[in-house]
Amino acid sequence: MTHYSTLDTPSVLIDLDKAEANLRRAQDAANRAGLNLRPHIKTHKLPFFARRQVDLGAVGINVQKLGEAEVMADAGLTDILLTFNIIGAAKLARLKALHERVTIRVVADSAECVAGLATTFTDPARPLGVFVECDTGMGRCGVQSPEAALDLARRIVAAPGLEFAGLMTYPAAGKYKQAAEWLAAAKALFDAESIPVPAITTGGTPDIWHMEAAAGVATEYRPGTYIYMDRSQVAAGAASFEDCALTVLATVVSRPTEDRAIIDAGSKALTSDLLGLVGHGYVLDYPEAKITGLSEEHGTIDLSACAQKPGIGDRIRIIPNHCCPVTNLFDRVYLLSGDNLVETLPVAARGRVD
Amino acid sequence: MTHYSTLDTPSVLIDLDKAEANLRRAQDAANRAGLNLRPHIKTHKLPFFARRQVDLGAVGINVQKLGEAEVMADAGLTDILLTFNIIGAAKLARLKALHERVTIRVVADSAECVAGLATTFTDPARPLGVFVECDTGMGRCGVQSPEAALDLARRIVAAPGLEFAGLMTYPAAGKYKQAAEWLAAAKALFDAESIPVPAITTGGTPDIWHMEAAAGVATEYRPGTYIYMDRSQVAAGAASFEDCALTVLATVVSRPTEDRAIIDAGSKALTSDLLGLVGHGYVLDYPEAKITGLSEEHGTIDLSACAQKPGIGDRIRIIPNHCCPVTNLFDRVYLLSGDNLVETLPVAARGRVD
Repeated sequence: MTHYSTLDTPSVLIDLDKAEANLRRAQDAANRAGLNLRPHIKTHKLPFFARRQVDLGAVGINVQKLGEAEVMADAGLTDILLTFNIIGAAKLARLKALHERVTIRVVADSAECVAGLATTFTDPARPLGVFVECDTGMGRCGVQSPEAALDLARRIVAAPGLEFAGLMTYPAAGKYKQAAEWLAAAKALFDAESIPVPAITTGGTPDIWHMEAAAGVATEYRPGTYIYMDRSQVAAGAASFEDCALTVLATVVSRPTEDRAIIDAGSKALTSDLLGLVGHGYVLDYPEAKITGLSEEHGTIDLSACAQKPGIGDRIRIIPNHCCPVTNLFDRVYLLSGDNLVETLPVAARGRVD
Repeated sequence: MTHYSTLDTPSVLIDLDKAEANLRRAQDAANRAGLNLRPHIKTHKLPFFARRQVDLGAVGINVQKLGEAEVMADAGLTDILLTFNIIGAAKLARLKALHERVTIRVVADSAECVAGLATTFTDPARPLGVFVECDTGMGRCGVQSPEAALDLARRIVAAPGLEFAGLMTYPAAGKYKQAAEWLAAAKALFDAESIPVPAITTGGTPDIWHMEAAAGVATEYRPGTYIYMDRSQVAAGAASFEDCALTVLATVVSRPTEDRAIIDAGSKALTSDLLGLVGHGYVLDYPEAKITGLSEEHGTIDLSACAQKPGIGDRIRIIPNHCCPVTNLFDRVYLLSGDNLVETLPVAARGRVD
């Protein structure tokens, strides 16, 4: 048995029991709410967990980039929603190749995007499913009104090789009621025009335990971070530190002063993501420790409030602010049962930027 | 000839002519100041540029992790300074293996660190060179006083398999005078005790054009970012946007409103590093554009101040806030001469976290 503390640092540890509990809790909540669950794999980037999510009841997976879809299709995942506008000939060709071997559907929020899809996909016998992305308050992609959603859906319906799949949104954290109202207004508009809306898909881990509030109008929920949880989700009230399955293992490499520790995990391990938080992570066993600064390879910890202080060579575990981009920085992760190593997995979809 | 605009996005473009000019300018400045130049390869992580830096006159290279040193040694680099405390049996064994095939030297800032090295390296015929790291104002690693530097140097001198290599610091940006004073005080102390200080190595791109201020006491300068430069270095006055050799190529994938563009480069391409700046990069050709937000795969741009606005499908080039961690996010970079692709290089030392 390999104890995690013997692994080299920095490294990413995944507590399998906590991850499994998080997966089951969300699937149960979706079942109770009558929603399909479609987990976003950007958080783990691992076929291992994508398959587990499907085994537990997920209807398929959500990815953000073609490269992620390709990795997951290679690994045997067969129902993939790619929630990103696919623009340009090179990406359309890759999407077409994927469409020939798995069920893949995409989103669009503009006539330009639909036009590119309509030119590439022309076979009414095997149409590409396209959702209209709706900006329900996030201020990122998406049509700006239910009327614009209807207009764009008409373009999709009019394209012989495309199929209108429904409405998709990524709601801003905490704005799940606003998102539900937006989607309900859009649904009413589509109903009045007798245009069927096969699915309405929403998501987000920050509001995952309010999933039932989406259920009145949505048919599907797409959380990502919920599998691991992180410090930002604890701050949002979606998890406790006990629920957090991903930790970064680091070594104290310097204790230059009584109150300062330097660890071998900097922004290249923890990322610079703050997500509105102060400090760069939560240190297990040293809850009063404050990670006050990161450079690429060094983390600076203020120990002034700590009764016990780690010494040079000691290992510490950190719950990062945001677990998803941490996964993207490591070539492999270590799966643990309790304190012991079960398996080492390559992060198959790491670095799939396009 | 492949024009950069035909490359898929997001991707990293390196302007070879600008990089070469940056390398030459720094080597010339070091030559004039009478300083050895030892470039930090964390910025490019490419044997290609490490060799070029040595060809132009660098005495060797600087790395931050053992994994980087291993990649560079494999690529034929023979003089490597690893400016990170090496702690623990696994890393000491890797360091020993490196020491057997190249000239590698390290730093230490504690008795514990020196003790680990002294136990591993025991051959007086082939001693390991060890610098004492000095905290001259950065507040990261390093002994806290010249007296502490002297004490630690005595421990190194006393270890049969170690060789005191000198003093090392990474000065805080803008504090190069303070760093030089600190090092001069330490040097005076060592001189008074008749302990030779073979080298004094300092660094940093923000103050690179003040290199001559270090020359009175330092013998070596270790800049990293200078090869590519970035928005933070422009803000620090060390470069102009014209000098910046690294850009991230992105595609506009959505124009949800008149003033908002969404690109396919988010924090997974540009990183969340702010380094005290407002916004997430400088957009070439659209200098009034403001990158106001990043999620992992989306960048949000405020175009309200722009006379011309890019449309869906348009390519834009961004000078990131901090180029070094961008390099770490991509498996490959594209080398350009002018607008044309010259070569595609794997980022050989990417993701070497330990």
